[in-house]
Amino acid sequence: MMHSLELTKPDGRRLTLYSRQPIDPALVAPSPFAEPLNASAHLRWHPLRGEWVTYAAFRQGRTFLPPPEYNPLAATTRADNPTEVPAGAWDVAVFDNRFPSLAALVPGANPPPQMIVATAPGAGHCEVVVFTQDPKASLGGLPLPHIELLMQVWGDRTQQVGSRDGIEYVLPFENRGAEVGVTLHHPHGQIYAYPVVPPVPARMQQVAQEHFQQAGRGVLDLMIENERRDGKRMLYEGPHAVAFVPVCARYPYEVWIAPIKPVAGFAQLGDEERADLARALKTVLLKYDGLWDRPLPYLMAWYQAPTDGQPHPESHLHAQLYPPYRTKDRLKYLAGTEIAAGFFAMDALPEEKALELQQVQVVLS
Amino acid sequence: MMHSLELTKPDGRRLTLYSRQPIDPALVAPSPFAEPLNASAHLRWHPLRGEWVTYAAFRQGRTFLPPPEYNPLAATTRADNPTEVPAGAWDVAVFDNRFPSLAALVPGANPPPQMIVATAPGAGHCEVVVFTQDPKASLGGLPLPHIELLMQVWGDRTQQVGSRDGIEYVLPFENRGAEVGVTLHHPHGQIYAYPVVPPVPARMQQVAQEHFQQAGRGVLDLMIENERRDGKRMLYEGPHAVAFVPVCARYPYEVWIAPIKPVAGFAQLGDEERADLARALKTVLLKYDGLWDRPLPYLMAWYQAPTDGQPHPESHLHAQLYPPYRTKDRLKYLAGTEIAAGFFAMDALPEEKALELQQVQVVLS
Repeated sequence: MMHSLELTKPDGRRLTLYSRQPIDPALVAPSPFAEPLNASAHLRWHPLRGEWVTYAAFRQGRTFLPPPEYNPLAATTRADNPTEVPAGAWDVAVFDNRFPSLAALVPGANPPPQMIVATAPGAGHCEVVVFTQDPKASLGGLPLPHIELLMQVWGDRTQQVGSRDGIEYVLPFENRGAEVGVTLHHPHGQIYAYPVVPPVPARMQQVAQEHFQQAGRGVLDLMIENERRDGKRMLYEGPHAVAFVPVCARYPYEVWIAPIKPVAGFAQLGDEERADLARALKTVLLKYDGLWDRPLPYLMAWYQAPTDGQPHPESHLHAQLYPPYRTKDRLKYLAGTEIAAGFFAMDALPEEKALELQQVQVVLS
Repeated sequence: MMHSLELTKPDGRRLTLYSRQPIDPALVAPSPFAEPLNASAHLRWHPLRGEWVTYAAFRQGRTFLPPPEYNPLAATTRADNPTEVPAGAWDVAVFDNRFPSLAALVPGANPPPQMIVATAPGAGHCEVVVFTQDPKASLGGLPLPHIELLMQVWGDRTQQVGSRDGIEYVLPFENRGAEVGVTLHHPHGQIYAYPVVPPVPARMQQVAQEHFQQAGRGVLDLMIENERRDGKRMLYEGPHAVAFVPVCARYPYEVWIAPIKPVAGFAQLGDEERADLARALKTVLLKYDGLWDRPLPYLMAWYQAPTDGQPHPESHLHAQLYPPYRTKDRLKYLAGTEIAAGFFAMDALPEEKALELQQVQVVLS
């Protein structure tokens, strides 16, 4: 059971609290900022790559430089020192990013500037997802019911935000660790809602649609069947969900996590499927942290169907996780061939890396 | 005038020396390695992204761990301590990478392994380009005639390697600086020759072809005309070449460099065009290093037409340079939205960053 409470911050931003228990309706949304959010972003067309780029120049002016001991994602304990979330009984909190790269159009906002390429309003939405009130926790360390709730939250946000006019794609993701640029260690993720289907999901949609038309089934659906039969790279295999190092991994410790049955997104998961998907996710994250007995940094992205109002029978909810290490001491740098050509070169075989992760024993709780 | 001398190393790899002066034909190619190169790589198909990934597992076994003071790209001075290049009068050296991510098929090599996805031999070619004999130099610091020679070398390599069976794309690039993973500071670049047109050039070719069919001219050709007319982001404008921060920059200090007249690649440049392109490149690299009075790391990739035997009137030789910094002290991390969605978010406007670079005065020599 998921309870939620929608609140508005003093600066106008939205905060939604989620819990497995009823939430005290008297809770009030704090904000470290008093003045109203005045975000604006615009898109410019990249004529060589055929894609949009977003510019949010006001983000440079982040005047907000908290002292290291100040954690804006911790519950507010002093009225004269408000954080982003209130004290009280809640499990997961979601609020509008104060420094969004994409922001809803506000009435009276300036139109996008005239440029030598096409421009457009940077209409979209960026949210911060606080995974837990415990600043020392990690996503993988949370109890299974808490991870299940988070998956419900991701589904609720995708429906709420994805149903807004002009939002075509919703991407929940987590950047974890200083190696991927994160300076705030309180467990949290982000949600980006885009006014277009972005290049990577667009490419995957195109490939999946072509496969679906030719084969009559989804490409990930078929791949999961083959990975299960092959078995060599599996990390978790439950009744409804799997996790594995894909045969075509582009990062040494890349892992995919998915429900076995294709569904469009988190909101379409049944209770048992979601529970098993939570077990798969927790298994992978505990293996990551157990690998070298230290928190492993990673980028985790959850791909769902576009929210463009079209049917997407080819879509299949899944996560792709990319840790930036290739060995315990060596980072995998993306350089010439990966960045400039988009052609990934791997020194390690996925079978070897899968074996390393298979040998990490974990206990679910 | 370009002179060259082709040699074979003791381990079978090819070394080509280039110079503006005749080269002593008695020079002998050294190698730090005695045993023959036994490289093999295989490709696996990524069914979700619709692209190939290359696996060269033998690269992990690099037993060659030189002491920090040993520079394999410096000229050999002691017969008992061979480097990759000989002492003697030469300006630029190109040799087969000892640890290639893609390698030509050798007779008797194992076929690619059977997998649950399509596999193929990792047939391709990886070369190292030593820009100069001076380990303390930098590409931007080299004299203009030396940079012109390097552009001739890039053209010669593209023709030599691109004409081989099965090579569809040749990419010269430079990764510079520890921030992009480079540990060897002797000025050098690499050349990757691919058995397919890789995803990024393939996407750019597709976009350029569509534009060419509709507009009757190249998309970069049009963009250069517009950037010159707009003028705000120009860094160099000569009779035959330009450099500018593109209106759609995805990295704060991104710069493009191109001949004004569209040509397919380095080999198609006239002498005056090449000379002006060298001035444009040197201008940009000196501005980079002058920005904060320290060597600025960057990835530089030179895009040419595919070597697939098809005509490519839409192609337009150009470089894209991506420094990984967004301010003097802050790296730009590629994270959720860039890596997972392919959707770039910028805090800075290209006009502001162009102004910073415009204000760096440089003297060409």
